[in-house]
Amino acid sequence: MKIGNEASVPRREVKVEGAVGATIQWLIAEPDGAPNFAMRRFVIAPDGHTPYHSHDDEHEVFVLSGKGKAFYEGSSTEISTGSFVFIEGGAMHNFVNDGSEDLVFLCIIPNTKK
Amino acid sequence: MKIGNEASVPRREVKVEGAVGATIQWLIAEPDGAPNFAMRRFVIAPDGHTPYHSHDDEHEVFVLSGKGKAFYEGSSTEISTGSFVFIEGGAMHNFVNDGSEDLVFLCIIPNTKK
Repeated sequence: MKIGNEASVPRREVKVEGAVGATIQWLIAEPDGAPNFAMRRFVIAPDGHTPYHSHDDEHEVFVLSGKGKAFYEGSSTEISTGSFVFIEGGAMHNFVNDGSEDLVFLCIIPNTKK
Repeated sequence: MKIGNEASVPRREVKVEGAVGATIQWLIAEPDGAPNFAMRRFVIAPDGHTPYHSHDDEHEVFVLSGKGKAFYEGSSTEISTGSFVFIEGGAMHNFVNDGSEDLVFLCIIPNTKK
């Protein structure tokens, strides 16, 4: 078991190329004994975004607060509190904060294959 | 890709024995093409709870709003907005709303093994 509150988990700057104004908190991950998938919380500042990229692993995202856009293969959809997004592996995507408050979301990914 | 808002997803009563005042919404699941895990949103009414039980699959939970307790192998921990809980497979657990407002959380589980 692991139990905590996100408020106590350090926020680290996302340093991947193409990320702007983004922090990540790893809430539950493989070192905690989670066998299959990891839960991370992202905060994207106004005018910030995650990198527009693709990768083999899927994303399952849930928006906790704020407003923005999910870009997917060149088109975009508005997202806000309560939005959920499934991005399959291999698709180009990112998340952009074009609002005036932080865009906050959970993003769950499978554990890296070994 | 799948994108939507939880507000548009039907809430179904949790009819498992031992569940009281609980609804579930399946936001992202295997029929959507999600290969590894499913995202569900639960709403537990005041005085309600999920069943106290165990199963092979793990839970990864994030509390969206409300207050309650996570019971785990006979002991309990307070949970509230921003709490996250990892329950490994095989452990007895449930979630109890002892507050005055709905207890709302996401619960992510692996796809059922075939």
